[in-house]
Amino acid sequence: MSSLCANSAFSQSTNVSLQSKNPLLHAIFNFTPSIKKQGSLFIRCSIRRRPEYVPGKISDPKYVRIFDTTLRDGEQSPGATMTTKEKLDVARQLAKLGVDIIEAGFPASSEADFEAVKLIAEEIGNNDEEGYVPVICGLSRCNKRDIDKAWDAVKYAKKPRVHTFIATSEIHMKYKLKMSREEVVEKARSMVAYARSLGCDDVEFSPEDAGRSEREFLYHILEEVIKAGATTLNIPDTVGYTVPSEFGQLIADIKANTPGIENVIISTHCQNDLGLSTANTLAGACAGARQLEVTINGIGERAGNASLEEVVMALKCRGEQVLGGLYTGVNTQHIIPSSKMVEEYTGLQVQPHKAIVGANAFAHESGIHQDGMLKHKDTYEIISPEDIGLSRANEAGIVLGKLSGRHALKSKMFELGYDIDGKELEDLFWRFKSVAEKKKKITDDDLIALMSDEVFQPQVVWKLGDVQITCGSLGLSTATVKLINTDGQEHIACSVGTGPVDAAYKAVDLIVKVPVTLLEYSMNAVTEGIDAIASTRVLIRGEVDHNVTNGSTGQTLHRTFSGTGADMDVVISSVRAYIGALNKMLSFEELVSRYNKPEDSVVVDDKA
Amino acid sequence: MSSLCANSAFSQSTNVSLQSKNPLLHAIFNFTPSIKKQGSLFIRCSIRRRPEYVPGKISDPKYVRIFDTTLRDGEQSPGATMTTKEKLDVARQLAKLGVDIIEAGFPASSEADFEAVKLIAEEIGNNDEEGYVPVICGLSRCNKRDIDKAWDAVKYAKKPRVHTFIATSEIHMKYKLKMSREEVVEKARSMVAYARSLGCDDVEFSPEDAGRSEREFLYHILEEVIKAGATTLNIPDTVGYTVPSEFGQLIADIKANTPGIENVIISTHCQNDLGLSTANTLAGACAGARQLEVTINGIGERAGNASLEEVVMALKCRGEQVLGGLYTGVNTQHIIPSSKMVEEYTGLQVQPHKAIVGANAFAHESGIHQDGMLKHKDTYEIISPEDIGLSRANEAGIVLGKLSGRHALKSKMFELGYDIDGKELEDLFWRFKSVAEKKKKITDDDLIALMSDEVFQPQVVWKLGDVQITCGSLGLSTATVKLINTDGQEHIACSVGTGPVDAAYKAVDLIVKVPVTLLEYSMNAVTEGIDAIASTRVLIRGEVDHNVTNGSTGQTLHRTFSGTGADMDVVISSVRAYIGALNKMLSFEELVSRYNKPEDSVVVDDKA
Repeated sequence: MSSLCANSAFSQSTNVSLQSKNPLLHAIFNFTPSIKKQGSLFIRCSIRRRPEYVPGKISDPKYVRIFDTTLRDGEQSPGATMTTKEKLDVARQLAKLGVDIIEAGFPASSEADFEAVKLIAEEIGNNDEEGYVPVICGLSRCNKRDIDKAWDAVKYAKKPRVHTFIATSEIHMKYKLKMSREEVVEKARSMVAYARSLGCDDVEFSPEDAGRSEREFLYHILEEVIKAGATTLNIPDTVGYTVPSEFGQLIADIKANTPGIENVIISTHCQNDLGLSTANTLAGACAGARQLEVTINGIGERAGNASLEEVVMALKCRGEQVLGGLYTGVNTQHIIPSSKMVEEYTGLQVQPHKAIVGANAFAHESGIHQDGMLKHKDTYEIISPEDIGLSRANEAGIVLGKLSGRHALKSKMFELGYDIDGKELEDLFWRFKSVAEKKKKITDDDLIALMSDEVFQPQVVWKLGDVQITCGSLGLSTATVKLINTDGQEHIACSVGTGPVDAAYKAVDLIVKVPVTLLEYSMNAVTEGIDAIASTRVLIRGEVDHNVTNGSTGQTLHRTFSGTGADMDVVISSVRAYIGALNKMLSFEELVSRYNKPEDSVVVDDKA
Repeated sequence: MSSLCANSAFSQSTNVSLQSKNPLLHAIFNFTPSIKKQGSLFIRCSIRRRPEYVPGKISDPKYVRIFDTTLRDGEQSPGATMTTKEKLDVARQLAKLGVDIIEAGFPASSEADFEAVKLIAEEIGNNDEEGYVPVICGLSRCNKRDIDKAWDAVKYAKKPRVHTFIATSEIHMKYKLKMSREEVVEKARSMVAYARSLGCDDVEFSPEDAGRSEREFLYHILEEVIKAGATTLNIPDTVGYTVPSEFGQLIADIKANTPGIENVIISTHCQNDLGLSTANTLAGACAGARQLEVTINGIGERAGNASLEEVVMALKCRGEQVLGGLYTGVNTQHIIPSSKMVEEYTGLQVQPHKAIVGANAFAHESGIHQDGMLKHKDTYEIISPEDIGLSRANEAGIVLGKLSGRHALKSKMFELGYDIDGKELEDLFWRFKSVAEKKKKITDDDLIALMSDEVFQPQVVWKLGDVQITCGSLGLSTATVKLINTDGQEHIACSVGTGPVDAAYKAVDLIVKVPVTLLEYSMNAVTEGIDAIASTRVLIRGEVDHNVTNGSTGQTLHRTFSGTGADMDVVISSVRAYIGALNKMLSFEELVSRYNKPEDSVVVDDKA
């Protein structure tokens, strides 16, 4: 690969970088030329090949694989449970982003997880529309049943991977596993070999709590799993405990001291408990890791994981200069849509000052637009909004009004990245018309909110008919609600409450008759103006617990369900969200009832 | 100082650390002994002296000063405008936290800023209740008028500091300042000397965009300002552009190559554009910086600054082991209350997976409590919730019910950290009673929400009387609102709208008659359960712009105003928030009308 990199003497941020393209391989274009006001020509251009994927082998020593675990580690955040449909949407988006590996779930944890991973393997794992096919990976503990489940789910993909883990720190081995060092090594070795014996030629192994494991033991167990056929060795900083110099040293030490390490890929997996996950991940890459495990928006348990957008943009902006020339295959222009989708589906809101994807990161929000434009001159800007797919609201493209038809709406939605048709389009169209009647200007954000509310709903068990409310500081709030079930039967109930939402939710409860606890409730105006669409999100937990097994700790978690609603009326928006969450829970219960075996005794059984 | 540090062979995270206490100096206690279930004795104990404060001198080479700029850099985030009362509350909280320096504002930017800084200097800058008096600092550009303003505001403090800055990168000098290198050096030198000549013996100087400045020139200008009397040299990574190794090297190079550097303190100021601010700040400290500029929750322009809680907790958890034994004087048990206050006042919500202070960081939220408890065994936990002042909801202490009286409420609020009396107590009491009538269990969070709504409101111009609403999917939403002005006159108006909040806001507009744009609207349930208190936040901008000068760029910003409301009825909560924001704007307009001089020509005037 030839390379030309010209740095103008004028500014460090002015650079032209061109690299030759091998037409046989997928080319990743990121070309953003722009003439800035103050006379500097500002061109960011990289045409990079994505090297061919071979398990455990690197074709280009500068290429870093991105392993996204939004659907596994991210989904296990409290309240972030996604439906199978949502998971498929996210996986499709990850393929657009160009991540190399998608960890799609933990198939042994529940039947729902198994089905989602299998569907992703079948669909996303066989689709080469984006010029490549991502690896589809399933997590498993070190036992045969987990590995069987993982393989059964991912084997439909063109490039399937099984990821198995076992703890290697003294404290975890002694108290959690109650196993000796020798037993742990034997378990890891035999289970990696077992996964290979099933026909899986891409096996990832993680020594859990590697950051606190004894070094010599770590080298030893890694050597053994390499011999057993592991192709990627993932080094997790499980407790988010290390600082960059320390984590970089850990990776360097493993690289220097593990026999056979040259035949596998080293990977990082950094938790963010001290806010250092991005820096640790980059330190790991500089020390030799060539796979980085990340999540969209940095979600995950506790303080989450290293965030894809920070790691990828740091490599993109500073890779050439200070990060050893490393690069990824991520098409950064899909970062913002991916971030919004994951925020919407998981309910884990991104703070306004979140790096790269926060609302203030480019101060692009309506109302502070002018401010943003003033600040983002060459003197301050290092990433252009276009680089990450941030479009200025309604700057160009199709403008919709109340007279727009289905075709215009379909075209506009396609422009925004959503390809809808048939009933979905019809439903969205009628919602769009009802809003367009009341609101002068329909923004892209409005359409996306309606889209999430109307199209991305779980399987519909109950549907909202009508709502009628009387409330205020003078009297008792009263709500009357009409719901329609799948048979088309109408149910009407009324209730009083401490406020309109309380009253309406109680009326819904009277109809649905499934006891739940409301854990969280939040609402945001989608656009500025008093007549904005309000988007509501609720998080509920059923009285009957829906338990699943935690992928990284093996412990039991209580499932919670989120729902979203959008409407110009805050109360209706709230009711829609509540019904959405109830529908998600009711669909999940149906799935669970099909799944019989208990999970929790598996590790112990297997050991016995 | 004698030191005993015993690391048990059992685990790296089990340590006992004791240091002798000099009774003449302030002792900082952080003692959290606890016996964990699995048999490990877990003691975190540090008794550390806060070294005496001398401008530009360090008494203990391991002590790192924490410079908090929440009130200056943080407040300049879009929509984060705080009232003078709110700023005083935050400053008081920062003194409780034990930060060494409080940057209270940019006095030349507006009369409101000047007054707030002066009040903070007078009150917080003279209060030694916490065993020390924080330095109160005011920002200024490199011109006499700015420096005069800053000094006039901070001089009332026991330990006043003036912080002046000028850009030193080629791109900034050429295009923003339109000055030659020699002119910039002369300006910096003369203005630092000018500040000293006023009687200010503590002067901080920042070469803006230091990260992109030519090294030799940077050493030269720093040498000159040291000669002119600067006591602290702050090195900002203005564009959030550097990676840790690079920023650490910058600090190390400055330390090695700047003549006279041994007589001053080096400081860091890291923006978070690539998500690396915490790591960069720690790298700076390890390379020799002994002042770290941070903000609560990491707020600030764009992606914000290094966050106080991450930097401080990283030093506390890993200082001894991997960060050169560095330590701070921060009392970490005030971190959570400080975080909540700043979130409340600035409206910049903290994402659930934010490190240290996010709702999921310890998974302590109601509903996922059990999950949290399961996970936080020794095997995973590195920081105990108590270390950062996170109390388990209603685990202990006074429990309030509907029969509780004023005294019980006052005691409970004191327990929660709020010392209220008189009218404030009376107002809160009646709000508390009305909620207690409807809600079985009053949690600490409920009380804090009511407290924010009732007591922390801006100067009251309009007060909510009553609200009456009819709405739903069947008809037009209609609201009738009664407001009371400062003379006690009642005004009533009604309006229709697209939803109940829209209708109510339009009715308020009919009475208040001040045209505003609603920029943001968001709502959260404070506690779990359908009958929770809803806390609403709105952000508005008046049609007449309220401009201020940006502290770091010198550009003009448009003021926006936030308001919060809390009620069990979502519509009433929304109306309260809107009236709060309007009151804040109207009070600000009154202040501004007392302030005549335009700001923006100052730099040019001074240069001419």
